[in-house]
Amino acid sequence: MPETRLDTERVRAARRVIDPVFLDTPIYRCDALEPALGCAVSIKLETANPVRSFKGRGTELIASGLGSGSVVCASAGNLGQALAWSGRTRGLDVTVVASHAAPAAKLDRIRALGARLELVDGDFDSARDRAAEIARCDGIRLVEDSLDVETCEGAGTIGLELVERAPSADVVLVALGGGAMATGIGHVLKDLAPGVQVVCVQPAGAPAMTLSFRERRVVTTESTDTIADGVAGRRPIPEVLDDLLLTADDAVLVQEASIVAGVRLLFEHAGLVAEPSAALGVAALLEDRDRFAGLHVVTVVCGGNVDPDAFGRWVGHPRTPRPT
Amino acid sequence: MPETRLDTERVRAARRVIDPVFLDTPIYRCDALEPALGCAVSIKLETANPVRSFKGRGTELIASGLGSGSVVCASAGNLGQALAWSGRTRGLDVTVVASHAAPAAKLDRIRALGARLELVDGDFDSARDRAAEIARCDGIRLVEDSLDVETCEGAGTIGLELVERAPSADVVLVALGGGAMATGIGHVLKDLAPGVQVVCVQPAGAPAMTLSFRERRVVTTESTDTIADGVAGRRPIPEVLDDLLLTADDAVLVQEASIVAGVRLLFEHAGLVAEPSAALGVAALLEDRDRFAGLHVVTVVCGGNVDPDAFGRWVGHPRTPRPT
Repeated sequence: MPETRLDTERVRAARRVIDPVFLDTPIYRCDALEPALGCAVSIKLETANPVRSFKGRGTELIASGLGSGSVVCASAGNLGQALAWSGRTRGLDVTVVASHAAPAAKLDRIRALGARLELVDGDFDSARDRAAEIARCDGIRLVEDSLDVETCEGAGTIGLELVERAPSADVVLVALGGGAMATGIGHVLKDLAPGVQVVCVQPAGAPAMTLSFRERRVVTTESTDTIADGVAGRRPIPEVLDDLLLTADDAVLVQEASIVAGVRLLFEHAGLVAEPSAALGVAALLEDRDRFAGLHVVTVVCGGNVDPDAFGRWVGHPRTPRPT
Repeated sequence: MPETRLDTERVRAARRVIDPVFLDTPIYRCDALEPALGCAVSIKLETANPVRSFKGRGTELIASGLGSGSVVCASAGNLGQALAWSGRTRGLDVTVVASHAAPAAKLDRIRALGARLELVDGDFDSARDRAAEIARCDGIRLVEDSLDVETCEGAGTIGLELVERAPSADVVLVALGGGAMATGIGHVLKDLAPGVQVVCVQPAGAPAMTLSFRERRVVTTESTDTIADGVAGRRPIPEVLDDLLLTADDAVLVQEASIVAGVRLLFEHAGLVAEPSAALGVAALLEDRDRFAGLHVVTVVCGGNVDPDAFGRWVGHPRTPRPT
């Protein structure tokens, strides 16, 4: 068992706490994708739930542990929705800090779910700073994605489902941002199915955690430049990097064009609306067919919150201007 | 218990035979849709599986009962994919007869799954005639959607999941074509949750079964005219109509514009790729807000096989011509 901050027994226990709407998500061989990708591909689909991403697994754990009160989190858009959803029925007062540049669809849903939304100039890491400041000034709980172990162990329940439902997998491809999903799934697989390779995928335009993984020390970047807004961080968290070094076999970087191609393939051949971060696995398969040829690869389609017009452009259906 | 051809105990037993990839599909409240629809809406999602429709539930039952051998079916496109999928690993030799006018994406997938595909001029009912002729000439098993009780009882497993996972539902909206899904879900609900209304929805451009339901006798039409290719039949089957009269509370017709609006809403607010037949329930909600106001409505999103370009047009993203 890897000596991370995570605990497999707590991950098992989490399944009794998380709303079933987030659990036991579909997993299936998607052979319609295989001619384009050159290997056996299974989809683990995390978008068919009320917040359209896997983040509810972690926020359910957090919210159930808090009771009522106030919390604040920074979010690229998906954690905020999930925390708002989990807090709503539990009387939690939720504040979400996000970048002005986050997709409008994500921001609209955070508001619609009843959270207070504060927008900041700058990027996700600027939002992290502001959320920490709010927590300090107001004396309320700061939920930090990937640092709070519940966010990792919540994502770890995906790992349990993979062990149970995809025993023939050779490789699991996991989008890498802050590291909650990668360390969560990675911990469980290293513990229960150590023969499965855990390969993290990050955009070349937002490579901080991958560079850190390769150098085995925190590497920050000055900026990010990617459509994969859900994973665009600049400042890896040391504790999470330590866990990632114990749970991931590799971390690879992919180009923007491959991410767009991945979004398009998932739409055309699998009928799925994936946000760019959720297409990173397919992008990695497109960029290195030789590496994965002959293997059974599971890719986690981890979120589906897209601005409809942006999605149209990615899949080759730009919306035609309407008469004004 | 309604005195139909179906048996709830056989439906329960079916769950032990059907590949788990088709069972326990997502069901969740989708409140992002609710401002547009004016009632509480839950999605029962049948598209996240290898054939992107609910039809695998029925074909798994059929194929597991047949062993090896040869079968032929007529299909609007989804049954053929599902039968090909279920037959492939069981050594079944599958022939599918479909209309030339069926969506290319569906026909391509039938071929890719290893079935022999025969295309006929005319519509789905022409394909039914040809499939029956092949079965007669070749002495092989004819699989008839909705007439073969396995197709109904397979769909009935959706009903069991609704009883277990959506106990607060007031209404279930079911796309109506041949009637397998409506009678399957309807039988189980009338048996186990008789307080839930079963409302069938059919395009006004393909109204034969709804007219038959209303007149309590088989009414055929000369032609069909709808984008909802999955439910476009002209000749209801008498035995299925008899069952439908015992299991459905109502059958309504919706306009094409509402079906397109339904496809678009499911994309924009739920992030789902639904084929037109799968958007019939949302279309019904759009056309009669008063009827459903204040109720909890479950709509079964039963298939997601679309031609990408047609989908782009429906959601307002027509593909721009490329330089040749």
